[in-house]
Amino acid sequence: MKVDDIMDVALRRGFIFPASEIYGGVSGFWEYGHLGTKLRQNWENAWRRHFLGLDPNYHEITTTNIMPKGVFEGSGHLENFNDPLTSCTKCNQRFRADDLVQEATGRSVEDLTPLELSEAIRAEGITCPKCKGELGEVNLFNMMFQVNIGAAGGLTGYLRPETAQGSFVSFKRMFEVLRNKLPMGLAIVGRVYRNEISPRQGFFRLREFNQAELQIFFDPDAFEEHPDFETVRDTVLRVKQFGSDDIVSLTCGELVESRGIGKFYVYHMARVQEFYLTTLRIPPELFRFRELGGKEKAFYNKVHWDVEVYMETLGGFKEVGGIHYRTDHDLGGHEKASKQRLQVNIDGKKFVPHVLELSFGVDRNFWALMDVFYEQEGERTVFHFPPALAPVTVAVFPLLNKPELIAAAEALYTRLSPHFSADYDRGGSIGRRYRRHDEVGTPYCLTVDFDTVEKGTVTLRDRDSMAQEAVALDTVAATLIARLCP
Amino acid sequence: MKVDDIMDVALRRGFIFPASEIYGGVSGFWEYGHLGTKLRQNWENAWRRHFLGLDPNYHEITTTNIMPKGVFEGSGHLENFNDPLTSCTKCNQRFRADDLVQEATGRSVEDLTPLELSEAIRAEGITCPKCKGELGEVNLFNMMFQVNIGAAGGLTGYLRPETAQGSFVSFKRMFEVLRNKLPMGLAIVGRVYRNEISPRQGFFRLREFNQAELQIFFDPDAFEEHPDFETVRDTVLRVKQFGSDDIVSLTCGELVESRGIGKFYVYHMARVQEFYLTTLRIPPELFRFRELGGKEKAFYNKVHWDVEVYMETLGGFKEVGGIHYRTDHDLGGHEKASKQRLQVNIDGKKFVPHVLELSFGVDRNFWALMDVFYEQEGERTVFHFPPALAPVTVAVFPLLNKPELIAAAEALYTRLSPHFSADYDRGGSIGRRYRRHDEVGTPYCLTVDFDTVEKGTVTLRDRDSMAQEAVALDTVAATLIARLCP
Repeated sequence: MKVDDIMDVALRRGFIFPASEIYGGVSGFWEYGHLGTKLRQNWENAWRRHFLGLDPNYHEITTTNIMPKGVFEGSGHLENFNDPLTSCTKCNQRFRADDLVQEATGRSVEDLTPLELSEAIRAEGITCPKCKGELGEVNLFNMMFQVNIGAAGGLTGYLRPETAQGSFVSFKRMFEVLRNKLPMGLAIVGRVYRNEISPRQGFFRLREFNQAELQIFFDPDAFEEHPDFETVRDTVLRVKQFGSDDIVSLTCGELVESRGIGKFYVYHMARVQEFYLTTLRIPPELFRFRELGGKEKAFYNKVHWDVEVYMETLGGFKEVGGIHYRTDHDLGGHEKASKQRLQVNIDGKKFVPHVLELSFGVDRNFWALMDVFYEQEGERTVFHFPPALAPVTVAVFPLLNKPELIAAAEALYTRLSPHFSADYDRGGSIGRRYRRHDEVGTPYCLTVDFDTVEKGTVTLRDRDSMAQEAVALDTVAATLIARLCP
Repeated sequence: MKVDDIMDVALRRGFIFPASEIYGGVSGFWEYGHLGTKLRQNWENAWRRHFLGLDPNYHEITTTNIMPKGVFEGSGHLENFNDPLTSCTKCNQRFRADDLVQEATGRSVEDLTPLELSEAIRAEGITCPKCKGELGEVNLFNMMFQVNIGAAGGLTGYLRPETAQGSFVSFKRMFEVLRNKLPMGLAIVGRVYRNEISPRQGFFRLREFNQAELQIFFDPDAFEEHPDFETVRDTVLRVKQFGSDDIVSLTCGELVESRGIGKFYVYHMARVQEFYLTTLRIPPELFRFRELGGKEKAFYNKVHWDVEVYMETLGGFKEVGGIHYRTDHDLGGHEKASKQRLQVNIDGKKFVPHVLELSFGVDRNFWALMDVFYEQEGERTVFHFPPALAPVTVAVFPLLNKPELIAAAEALYTRLSPHFSADYDRGGSIGRRYRRHDEVGTPYCLTVDFDTVEKGTVTLRDRDSMAQEAVALDTVAATLIARLCP
């Protein structure tokens, strides 16, 4: 199984591993080793460069993980962020009731109430999957982690279940700081927490994970336009529309005209796709936008397309992000709950800005890179990561254990390592060292041999073509830069 | 007051502001605006470059914020991470009992038990500072935030009170991944949480904050040596030794010889000081190491020097980091609690590695930059940040509101912004725009004028010297890079 092969490399080479492992770990918590940390940071920095580069008024902020109760009254999470829970009356194991009913009946049960789920469990004779015991009544379980701030009797707070609320509650301050201009984008890249009832072991459903979100505040009257729309009018998007099973190719212009979706929205779809196809180099056939409609779409999202990548390890197209036109749902809710005016006044026009949210699961995107770029080629295991994203950019080897080669290789490593993510490796045959670096996706290996000492050249080996060429020592850095930023 | 002046700029320009502000905020929680986020990230990335560059086997990992109870049994936090708490029997306000007794008596009360503190409160007649009511018995209050993982009756977890435990519980896995070599360094840069009883409003004592820590695992027999010690033997350190009030200058060699501190430790002191004086450009007279001894030092720290920076806003030298020789306290504790063998076997020698911890409070370092580099020069407010750390590196202005100047300025901004943190500003007079950028510490401003259109030059203005010079458009990027990395 491909998933087992990838997980084997991930654990053995320091991409990801279960958190607090020596204490047995806890489902839904994973850590990033040294290579995983680099790959995730490279993705995050590429995300920042791309999305904050879309408009001079898009900026990153950093808000707290713990937020007071009022924030989640305003956002609606306290009331609505629930999963239906049932427990076995015999073994006390807890389950998501909707999952059990859906598995037993094959029906979509998304809008059943707890009472209806309880009835379905009885009607279908569903018992505990572990011990076949009787299942108890279904209750709603709020998925936020609660904390008490200060000593007993202090304030109630929650760990944020999404980064978005940080941008919403900072809107008022940042709108003043950034001199009252729309559109204004506030991005947050950081940790979020969801107290899943019983996540399966595995990396795709986590209780603590990372999001990269950009909340764009704009004048709703400007939704039908975008000043740069013409630059993307002919860009072809890969889309699966609501109610259809087909992925079709439509230009941005066609999507606006045939579906009446605002240009402001479609422009951002094009730039999202550009990020996936150009920066992350996801093959187009593995990428699509999926339109959500009907009951699968949250009531406050007026337009909602998920961003999906096909992952063999997960058996199909899976959500890695979403583009949500949330209207004034968020600022309106916080205005009501906080009793602070979040209306703006631009040239005498007063309104509550609307929000377009570009939301991405960092860990899911990380796993997509692991899945899409993994290849087993005979004896060779390779991650074909885009060179600029690879955890290690360049590895330096001395060909043999000779003092003059070791000295020259160490000097080269020392020269490169402040500027590139570099590794130095002198263990085993060259073939073995190539294989070790293929396995973690290092795009370039430099071997120092006797030509280095005599002629001042090193052998540059390319991960993907496996071609080798001689490069002059004093042009190595420039050669690497040229290949990283073609 | 300087602190009010800095806070005014911080709030108004988007460095920091109280978290969840529209809901009234909560003491001990602060957010970073767009400029604060950049400054903090620049500090963090400089920290990574410097400290991960000290040894090819020092690496960054990413561990979870929520960790299960067992971790804190092993670390001792469940038993020992307490503050003595007393409450007013009349108004219910809670206080740290040791603070109250220390303020009333002027005596150091660090090692008094809760019972002794209760007695001191009675003996001194200390009453509630708010309402003069009677204070209740003193109890220990554990400062970790507790969370329940899974539905009711699930597992107990805690938000980590320091990043260090993530490195300790990942030691076993990462030691295998990194092929069983010592010294091995595991760094974590991330969020930590301490449930302070009643932090004052302000930025220096936070309940949610950021740490950058490097845990170096090493063979205790190698503590007396470091392969690169000769490179720092003559480096002069500014030190305040335990029991003395004076800051003296001692070379690393003198510190090793006079005090018998291992070269492995002193080598890392030198590289910490280098980070502060060279990378952060803290004036030497505002920097010192302060040795901790006697009761102020944790029992498991065999050698402990704090890293301190003089901050006028805080009235003296304040801790921004620490260098802790923690022996085998951490791995020993986790070995016992987890029942996993954390002993290593290197060439037949079996031992539990010792730990040297380099620990830094990111937010305190951030505030140190705000304090040290702030200057009020007549009408001009300036942050003299090191150019490579400044939130905005370069600002581009059109001299006048003429189409040809605006077009040229926008083109220059568009060319620079993918590579530099750049801002574009066309509002108000040039003098006003200079002042706006001085106030946030932008080191370079570029004004596009008629010479730009006619001769292809722009005016480069330096923040610190206020000197202006003409620079050819096609050498602007190279000029900036040369000044950023002199």
